[in-house]
Amino acid sequence: MKPGDRLHVVILAGGSGTRFWPLSRAKRPKQFLSLAGKVSLLRATWDRARTLAPAERIWAVAPRALAAAVRQELPELRRDRLVLEPSPKDTAPAIALACAVIARSDPRAIAAIFPSDHVIRDTSAFKRAVAVARKAAAAGALVCLGIAPDRAATGFGYLKLGARRRSGVASPVLQFVEKPDAERARRFLRSGRYLWNGGMFVWRIDRFLDELARVAPEVHGATAAVAAGSRAAWRDVPKISVDHAVMEKASRVAVVPLDAGWDDLGSWDAAARHASTGRDGRGERVMIGSEGAVVFGGTRVVAILDLPGVVVVDTRDALLVLPRASSEKVKSVLEAVRSAGRADVL
Amino acid sequence: MKPGDRLHVVILAGGSGTRFWPLSRAKRPKQFLSLAGKVSLLRATWDRARTLAPAERIWAVAPRALAAAVRQELPELRRDRLVLEPSPKDTAPAIALACAVIARSDPRAIAAIFPSDHVIRDTSAFKRAVAVARKAAAAGALVCLGIAPDRAATGFGYLKLGARRRSGVASPVLQFVEKPDAERARRFLRSGRYLWNGGMFVWRIDRFLDELARVAPEVHGATAAVAAGSRAAWRDVPKISVDHAVMEKASRVAVVPLDAGWDDLGSWDAAARHASTGRDGRGERVMIGSEGAVVFGGTRVVAILDLPGVVVVDTRDALLVLPRASSEKVKSVLEAVRSAGRADVL
Repeated sequence: MKPGDRLHVVILAGGSGTRFWPLSRAKRPKQFLSLAGKVSLLRATWDRARTLAPAERIWAVAPRALAAAVRQELPELRRDRLVLEPSPKDTAPAIALACAVIARSDPRAIAAIFPSDHVIRDTSAFKRAVAVARKAAAAGALVCLGIAPDRAATGFGYLKLGARRRSGVASPVLQFVEKPDAERARRFLRSGRYLWNGGMFVWRIDRFLDELARVAPEVHGATAAVAAGSRAAWRDVPKISVDHAVMEKASRVAVVPLDAGWDDLGSWDAAARHASTGRDGRGERVMIGSEGAVVFGGTRVVAILDLPGVVVVDTRDALLVLPRASSEKVKSVLEAVRSAGRADVL
Repeated sequence: MKPGDRLHVVILAGGSGTRFWPLSRAKRPKQFLSLAGKVSLLRATWDRARTLAPAERIWAVAPRALAAAVRQELPELRRDRLVLEPSPKDTAPAIALACAVIARSDPRAIAAIFPSDHVIRDTSAFKRAVAVARKAAAAGALVCLGIAPDRAATGFGYLKLGARRRSGVASPVLQFVEKPDAERARRFLRSGRYLWNGGMFVWRIDRFLDELARVAPEVHGATAAVAAGSRAAWRDVPKISVDHAVMEKASRVAVVPLDAGWDDLGSWDAAARHASTGRDGRGERVMIGSEGAVVFGGTRVVAILDLPGVVVVDTRDALLVLPRASSEKVKSVLEAVRSAGRADVL
């Protein structure tokens, strides 16, 4: 086996997020929910990772507060493969720490890094894209997996290509573009030269750590110290995303298109598109005159009358009812619940 | 005290009805719910009755299956004042049985008969109307309390007067009219000569039983036998309303207008008009962009976003969500729940 040939998978198992309240809670964020299928998003991410590498080369990185939940959800995860952040600090520190830890035993490994709160429907297409990315990574590129946009979404960052996208090929990234307004997003969609930044990366760990040391030395130094055993150094790590800290400034950044039924499941409306309506094996659902209505959670009989497209989220101590079209506004509900003195259910 | 001077109150504590599912259940029908205020409708009916008569002259009539629930809700009700129907048979048998039982100890009593599933806001106005009705009853009339319509309702029976209605006066009833269509209801409203039949009656028991024997001898005979101890006779009692069995055919039927904030609370929409929104002391309610939304039941945090006028009925094992405007269609939900094999929650 040549140096740089061994693929390790890093699952980003942290991340909070409030968009799926009340099914998600501070102690049970989105990746632990079964929003698209029978298993949790985190579990599905593990299962995909296993198609790429054996369990001993699959890592998870998560804030200490979620350690027990991650171990419970992923019993096959080796204890020494769970990298714990003393506190959550966004993606750059999490990824840097995981890479620094892996580097201690396998410094020329290739790492494939995946969020655990997205859906990927087509595992075969996913594997093919990772294989292409892996080759480019072995040759020294920092590779992103980019999603071909199917609508002018304003909720994602975009990757600008030098030419129209071609599947099965790694292309240089000309620019990282932050979430655009609607008009720019429409232009991006028409041009065929932009992909969504899905937050998935493949690279040689030595290449990544070299770039990190060059463009974000404060992240590099502190995470290296933590990887070497100094938990106190975490204090000095800035909160910053890997896009801002590294990718926007690094050299030899490439992208491989991923066309594998990806969805970031960013709202109840998105989850509703993946949910099966009607009886889901837990509670009984009775829907009359309510096309597109969806019930999440719960074990009770839930009856919906004349409310097309309504979302009902039914949990033991909190209930949320809203139209799918208002899914982006769940945050305002959480603020109101907090103001009402009921942070205990958040 | 002259014969016919002693007023007994009969509370019709039976009645099933499905309009308030899932808060109401087969074993806990509407009259046991606190749909307008802190106490149940049945309890409020008792409290009103107590402004008319001492406890020893207040009776309740209910099917045997509800006996325990009635006793629990009305602990002051004397045990021998609870008249039990072996099975539910509509209002004529219930009223006839109660009157026959009272007649055994006080044959010339006046009975004031009230459903227990309506709201009456103004107890003073109620007492004044009953006082007027009582005088007319003492003189031999079978008196209805009639509600001045404030809209062209199609869900009630109407009483036709010989002249425009005058408050504080008993007038002869020319005709009992069944639930009209919308056009007739509008005509009734404009004419000022119609009142809603509220199902409340005041009469001398001897007069009522005489009329009953004349116009509905099969009801009279069987209920008299049951009152005398023959439970088996109940089998022969037809299911029929007191309007059909007696009032439409009786002589000397009069009506006294009741203007006392009466509401039959016939649907979730009607109950919503009487409910206070927001926090009700049980669960926390968070409503954003949801004018006129109402939550019934439950102890959980219930959050409603962008659904004006929605009704959420939150119970331990069943949840109903619907727009207020669809309140009349709850029956279709019950049928669907039954079809789904979940009659256990009905």
